[in-house]
Amino acid sequence: MDLLLLSNGKIAGNTKVMEFALPAITEVFTRKHVKNVLVIPYAVIRSSHDDRTAMVAESLSHLDVNVTGLHRAEDPVEAIRQADAFVCSGGNTWVLNKTLHDLGLIGPIQQAVTQRGVPYVGWSAGAVISAPTIRTTNDMCIVSAAITPSLSFVPFQINAHYIDATIEGHMGETRDERIEEFLVVNPHQSVIGIPEGSWLAVSGDTMTYEAANGKPLHWFRLNQERQKIQAGSDVTELMGLDG
Amino acid sequence: MDLLLLSNGKIAGNTKVMEFALPAITEVFTRKHVKNVLVIPYAVIRSSHDDRTAMVAESLSHLDVNVTGLHRAEDPVEAIRQADAFVCSGGNTWVLNKTLHDLGLIGPIQQAVTQRGVPYVGWSAGAVISAPTIRTTNDMCIVSAAITPSLSFVPFQINAHYIDATIEGHMGETRDERIEEFLVVNPHQSVIGIPEGSWLAVSGDTMTYEAANGKPLHWFRLNQERQKIQAGSDVTELMGLDG
Repeated sequence: MDLLLLSNGKIAGNTKVMEFALPAITEVFTRKHVKNVLVIPYAVIRSSHDDRTAMVAESLSHLDVNVTGLHRAEDPVEAIRQADAFVCSGGNTWVLNKTLHDLGLIGPIQQAVTQRGVPYVGWSAGAVISAPTIRTTNDMCIVSAAITPSLSFVPFQINAHYIDATIEGHMGETRDERIEEFLVVNPHQSVIGIPEGSWLAVSGDTMTYEAANGKPLHWFRLNQERQKIQAGSDVTELMGLDG
Repeated sequence: MDLLLLSNGKIAGNTKVMEFALPAITEVFTRKHVKNVLVIPYAVIRSSHDDRTAMVAESLSHLDVNVTGLHRAEDPVEAIRQADAFVCSGGNTWVLNKTLHDLGLIGPIQQAVTQRGVPYVGWSAGAVISAPTIRTTNDMCIVSAAITPSLSFVPFQINAHYIDATIEGHMGETRDERIEEFLVVNPHQSVIGIPEGSWLAVSGDTMTYEAANGKPLHWFRLNQERQKIQAGSDVTELMGLDG
């Protein structure tokens, strides 16, 4: 498998989506001789799928690739079979996951990524769906049919945009409290918090953690002190966790 | 119906849960001659149901009432039938709603509140479940079976702990952006944001909006400027919205 799971799309100073991780994306797409990039734009709610596809194309304009949107495919499953790489945009995780299930695309994407080794790049919601379920998304469940199981590329839960700060005067649960609640109800699982500007990179049997701004990954387990892992670390160990 | 839907449990300076709304609770419980208060504690994850029930009892200690926890009832449906009032604690909305569905308590609580006029007081998650669905909760969906339909005492969606501030450096969606996404996907619905320290009070056919700290209610509709409504206002109009 080749995965690049980005916490978010842009950090301060970026003008293009995925800009902070473009060297890593370029390395994977070059190594895998990628020609046809398929954008999965279904998480996008407040702008158009076409616009988001164009934003991805702009980010990849230094590469000799064709970039198309899955929403434009007459036969989405065939488009997935023809793709050399996937880029899955952020937005609303619930809408993204439900759309993939509704269109019958979970299986074809899993097959492409895990069996044929097609590289998968996702940011925010696009990273969260790489987990067994989307239960640790921060997004509001804006759909009536809330579907939690997802792509299961990795065996742990992902919390994107991870941050341990709180808004002054806000008495609702903090992010850490929400993750703790998840672990109380799901005591054998791990939640991996990836802060803004960071990503998990799976290449073959190895997973590393990278961060453009040097922020650490946070590994949460029930009744254990959280483990902070520095950028540049090998985190292959996490791929062996129970899902 | 008699409802008191509190945004949250405590504001700065409070030592007891529901403290900022105790005059309103006392008025309702006295007017309705409440003797048996049934606490619905299922939202609580990080402390015990017994502890939470005791916290509610402490808040109501100035009243001559018996306070018991629904989790202790041998026959929960019978306990609901015997209750003179409900107090539903905050915590995780997904766990609360799923538990009420799993135990078959949605119907009995609806019957008690809407047919027999048993007062219902809820804060945070306990307020959110008064809506047709819990889709506008801020909580993480920590359960695998995500159930969205809920008690439907009111026809609009509730966003508790409503706040329009953001954390500096956080690139995830703001609260307002999340609510906007909800409206794009559900264009005929309204979301009512109730800030910390505020509550909606339904008495008979009338609904008013109150706030201990004077913060306004926010009424969100698609493609319309949000409407801010001041504390002390009659908001019965909202009870006529499409659900």
